[in-house]
Amino acid sequence: MRVGDLGEFGLIDLLVGKLGTRDDVIVGPGDDTAVVRTADGTELLITADTFVEDVHFIRDQVAAADVGWKSLAVSLSDVAAMGGSPRWATISIRVPGDLDADWCAEMYVGLQECAEVYDVAIVGGNVSKSLPGKISIDSSVVGVVENGRYVTRSGAQPGDVVLLTGPTGLAAAGRGCLGRGMDSALLVKAFCRPEPRVKAGMTAAASESVTAMIDISDGLAADLGHICTSSGVGAEIDADLIPVTEELLAYCEVVGEDAIVHALTGGEDYELIICCRPEHADQIEATAIGVITSGEKVTVLDVEGRPMKLDAAGWNHLQST
Amino acid sequence: MRVGDLGEFGLIDLLVGKLGTRDDVIVGPGDDTAVVRTADGTELLITADTFVEDVHFIRDQVAAADVGWKSLAVSLSDVAAMGGSPRWATISIRVPGDLDADWCAEMYVGLQECAEVYDVAIVGGNVSKSLPGKISIDSSVVGVVENGRYVTRSGAQPGDVVLLTGPTGLAAAGRGCLGRGMDSALLVKAFCRPEPRVKAGMTAAASESVTAMIDISDGLAADLGHICTSSGVGAEIDADLIPVTEELLAYCEVVGEDAIVHALTGGEDYELIICCRPEHADQIEATAIGVITSGEKVTVLDVEGRPMKLDAAGWNHLQST
Repeated sequence: MRVGDLGEFGLIDLLVGKLGTRDDVIVGPGDDTAVVRTADGTELLITADTFVEDVHFIRDQVAAADVGWKSLAVSLSDVAAMGGSPRWATISIRVPGDLDADWCAEMYVGLQECAEVYDVAIVGGNVSKSLPGKISIDSSVVGVVENGRYVTRSGAQPGDVVLLTGPTGLAAAGRGCLGRGMDSALLVKAFCRPEPRVKAGMTAAASESVTAMIDISDGLAADLGHICTSSGVGAEIDADLIPVTEELLAYCEVVGEDAIVHALTGGEDYELIICCRPEHADQIEATAIGVITSGEKVTVLDVEGRPMKLDAAGWNHLQST
Repeated sequence: MRVGDLGEFGLIDLLVGKLGTRDDVIVGPGDDTAVVRTADGTELLITADTFVEDVHFIRDQVAAADVGWKSLAVSLSDVAAMGGSPRWATISIRVPGDLDADWCAEMYVGLQECAEVYDVAIVGGNVSKSLPGKISIDSSVVGVVENGRYVTRSGAQPGDVVLLTGPTGLAAAGRGCLGRGMDSALLVKAFCRPEPRVKAGMTAAASESVTAMIDISDGLAADLGHICTSSGVGAEIDADLIPVTEELLAYCEVVGEDAIVHALTGGEDYELIICCRPEHADQIEATAIGVITSGEKVTVLDVEGRPMKLDAAGWNHLQST
């Protein structure tokens, strides 16, 4: 079977099945980051992510500095989703030999901007030739977390309130703006310079009432689905509670798309979904959009209380389309 | 200027110049690994390396399991070169959608074999689509080291003995065998399944007389040159002290190349170069091949004591050839 037919998550399941475990690995593959414990008891978060030309960005559409910013931001967001503080990063790039060195230098300016904003030190990495001619960037991040205070995807319980740290669908609309040559600085910025919710994640993780978190890379519905699968629960979302910005509404009116569907399925927002016991949910600075149920899947109720049908449950990074 | 004209090391210099520093980064970019310190004083080694189809391996020539093994081994070797113990790894792969999933699964079997031999836990990573159609693999490794006992490239002093943990040139000859369809299991294994010298590195780092180490990825002469540049010293190597195996001699006779030049310039051996104060050099289990001098570059003396001229100072991973 081709990996494209297997899909991203099918391939991950196949590959992770080949790996072993060890006692000092507290959380292994399958969550936003791994959690490991050193011999002296320090808990570390470890994660890696990839940013590929023509898969995640189009070189002509996105400034080099933005490519640098986002290539690091995507990994910082994984640490945020565990409630940790990202500390050190490595960056490995593969570049075509005919790429302008100024482009690379600008990319590193954006990378360092992101590192400074989030107080992350870029401590190493690698450069290699890519064949035939496309850029790709790997960021790997090590973070720290107060021992035992990390939050996984798998702790959500029926009755939890589902909270969202900010509006979604903006990044996907920003990508649409770039593709269509439309002008919307806010949407384009959401796509090009996402801001990982590190502080929100750390604050939430400090509350013992927070049971599960994930960052939104695949889309609100898909990533809430990942929490449900990992936790063995379902979720019920009220469409009219989902925050929709004026910019997203304006974009959707122009392109003839539904703003709620966009907010539910657009990927790469890097907001956090936080599940919290109901008695303390109002202490979390985030928008309540629904509840965890004893079901198995994510249901979205429209304004009349009827379940909506979604055409796309988010991104599949290995799809042919 | 194109990055290919700038070269691998020129590009690295340009990019590292854009990065900042921070107090908890003890060794930043430029050594085999970074060394960082956590808030509670634990020192960690962090490194990343990349393995690219048609740059580092030809898919038709190398078994998938060997690709997996080597993609991790190259990063473990960096930890070995600091005298550390590799503990946790992430693996990020970019694969074409039409790749056979069995190939990926086999690659992960080899990856896990390497992880088990070196007691490393693969704790996460990423899969992404590659465009257009080439495989690349990033490994990122976090290691531990007894506090203060890591060994950098930059401590070599005139008078140090230059030691080598094993014969070199075999991996490059193995690559040559694969390209030429020649049969030499030992040379091919040296190329396909390199064995990072983790124990040798840890043992050497335990000696206070060891001043500098590096692993040989670019070639013996080039990597010794990196020690010299970082340490502000030179080195004088005796060609007749360089270990040359029968297999390398046989290969060089067939292809009409010089075995000593091969041993000096062939890359990807992943043996260690260890510099050690002369009074304790005989306690290190490795072969003495020369001395560190107060000069600036690496000189190789032939059997008659005359400096040899080398055509290639090792690999440049961004060269067009």
